Amino acid sequence: MAEDKKREGRLDEFSLIARYFAPLATAPEALGLRDDAAVIALPAGQELVISCDTIVEGVHFLKDDPPETIGHKALAVNLSDLAAKGARPYAYLLALTLPNEPSAQWLERFTAGLRTLQDEAGIALVGGDTTRGPGPLSLTITALGLVPQGTSVPRRGAKAGDRLYVTGTIGDSYLGLRLLQQPDLAGAWTLNKEAVAFLVRRYQQPEPRVALTTVIRNCAESAIDVSDGLVGDVEKLCHVSHVSAEIELERIPLSAPARKAVAKDRDLLERMIVAGDDYEIAAAVPEVRGAKFEAEAARAGVGIAAIGTIRAGEGDVTVLDRDGRPVTLTRKGFSHF
Amino acid sequence: MAEDKKREGRLDEFSLIARYFAPLATAPEALGLRDDAAVIALPAGQELVISCDTIVEGVHFLKDDPPETIGHKALAVNLSDLAAKGARPYAYLLALTLPNEPSAQWLERFTAGLRTLQDEAGIALVGGDTTRGPGPLSLTITALGLVPQGTSVPRRGAKAGDRLYVTGTIGDSYLGLRLLQQPDLAGAWTLNKEAVAFLVRRYQQPEPRVALTTVIRNCAESAIDVSDGLVGDVEKLCHVSHVSAEIELERIPLSAPARKAVAKDRDLLERMIVAGDDYEIAAAVPEVRGAKFEAEAARAGVGIAAIGTIRAGEGDVTVLDRDGRPVTLTRKGFSHF
Repeated sequence: MAEDKKREGRLDEFSLIARYFAPLATAPEALGLRDDAAVIALPAGQELVISCDTIVEGVHFLKDDPPETIGHKALAVNLSDLAAKGARPYAYLLALTLPNEPSAQWLERFTAGLRTLQDEAGIALVGGDTTRGPGPLSLTITALGLVPQGTSVPRRGAKAGDRLYVTGTIGDSYLGLRLLQQPDLAGAWTLNKEAVAFLVRRYQQPEPRVALTTVIRNCAESAIDVSDGLVGDVEKLCHVSHVSAEIELERIPLSAPARKAVAKDRDLLERMIVAGDDYEIAAAVPEVRGAKFEAEAARAGVGIAAIGTIRAGEGDVTVLDRDGRPVTLTRKGFSHF
Repeated sequence: MAEDKKREGRLDEFSLIARYFAPLATAPEALGLRDDAAVIALPAGQELVISCDTIVEGVHFLKDDPPETIGHKALAVNLSDLAAKGARPYAYLLALTLPNEPSAQWLERFTAGLRTLQDEAGIALVGGDTTRGPGPLSLTITALGLVPQGTSVPRRGAKAGDRLYVTGTIGDSYLGLRLLQQPDLAGAWTLNKEAVAFLVRRYQQPEPRVALTTVIRNCAESAIDVSDGLVGDVEKLCHVSHVSAEIELERIPLSAPARKAVAKDRDLLERMIVAGDDYEIAAAVPEVRGAKFEAEAARAGVGIAAIGTIRAGEGDVTVLDRDGRPVTLTRKGFSHF
């Protein structure tokens, strides 16, 4: 039985690869995806940065999400990890486990999502695997990036006195997911169609901060990809850096639709800063490099905000309200410690 | 809901990594698995060879397979791909999707299986991901290997006149799977307990031919990992090399238990050469390097057998019986073309 299922899955693996995935393998190293493995030349003086993240239907994306956004998200979450290390995207591999025979239309839309983002990031597919399995749709992408030797940005490395920055805006993705699950919240939050579409897009199609790669490498002492919630991820950064952090609640950057929702339901804010799927970057930047970081980020066209300060300590993150009083978070989003 | 499931999965991800996976991350590059991504120095003059294969419960292994063998197999199938390219194993990443809370005992046995094989292969875990998902247990490993620049063995490259070799023995894994599914076949095939255990082990714990890496690089013009059936995989090699091949049925190497089973049921042989999961290597070696290949493989302690000849043609594989007549295979195992 096991063998039969496998063979059935294999039946169309090759035509599937040739038709839908080979066009994504635009680099000669991929050998048209017709080999056992990719062979990649290694530029001298560079180090390899590798990220490997899985997204599963019903866990990291919803069954009804548009196929383009599923391809986009699988790649985006990995490019976000590379960006936090200051690594330039170089190539990627895709391991796809399909629950059943995908339609041609699904595959076209799914690969179109990958294609758009890989072109933006300047990389190509170099290998992977396609499997049929009894579970939900599952995708594992391994993304390879490059940094000049010795220049990758570590997660540990933050020092007391550093400014804590975050890119983009926080919490949109949480609100987008809530709106997909319960569309009538749009009314409660007084959001128009465009605002809802914006928040849903932030959940379905997070934009990895590839444009900030060099800026982060030039300026940050420590950085982390915000994927499991701002507070929890800053705590991880602090934990391995042996420091603590203060975050000023009012300085956490919110999009206009998110501000509107929070104005109607103030409790949302607390959930937004511990929810995940932001795919922004939190970075500790020495005070003296703050102005440079802000100027370079502005030139790169990515919004950044100074949200707090790194303090001496051992992994504590304190969120302060506008009066400088610590906020008690009921659900920290980092109970894994 | 989606978010809750994810968060639940995240709850113990960090202790799980620290306790069970950090001990596998023996190289400093892995940063104790406490960073977003691994940073790996690239030795000068080397090329990177990358393989990425998924194995899924109920498809590539059975639900009741011992946990050690599941860890072993996930890594073995990738090391087999590297060996076919002549690449020395360098590091690997593991993306693990768990259907439910694994027991401490399961995790200990699973990681012990990985540990034994990674130590044999001289590599270490450098990164990955752990996810909770509603489907069956699924593992994607990305394995990185190294070859001196320009020396990787391509799948295309076979030339008319080359000898076709295969390593080890073929079909054991197919017989092992059949015995797991239908234990009373042992009686029909007159196999004793040791013979059954051998065949089952060949299914559950395939031995990647890492020991032959250098030999294949020194001698083979073209090679492929035999994972989807000998005949089908040789056909793939021929297809991309623009040649054909003749395989002499009687020369295909069989283990003693397999010979015993075939003696009782001659029809098995045909299925064994199109079934998958052998994780041996088929290689096209120029006639003049044949003796060298055989001598070096013998020194490496791995059995190899000359099973046929590469001919001019366009991807046809003919299997000849002992009288030189073509055998008609009813189920080719390569209907994907």
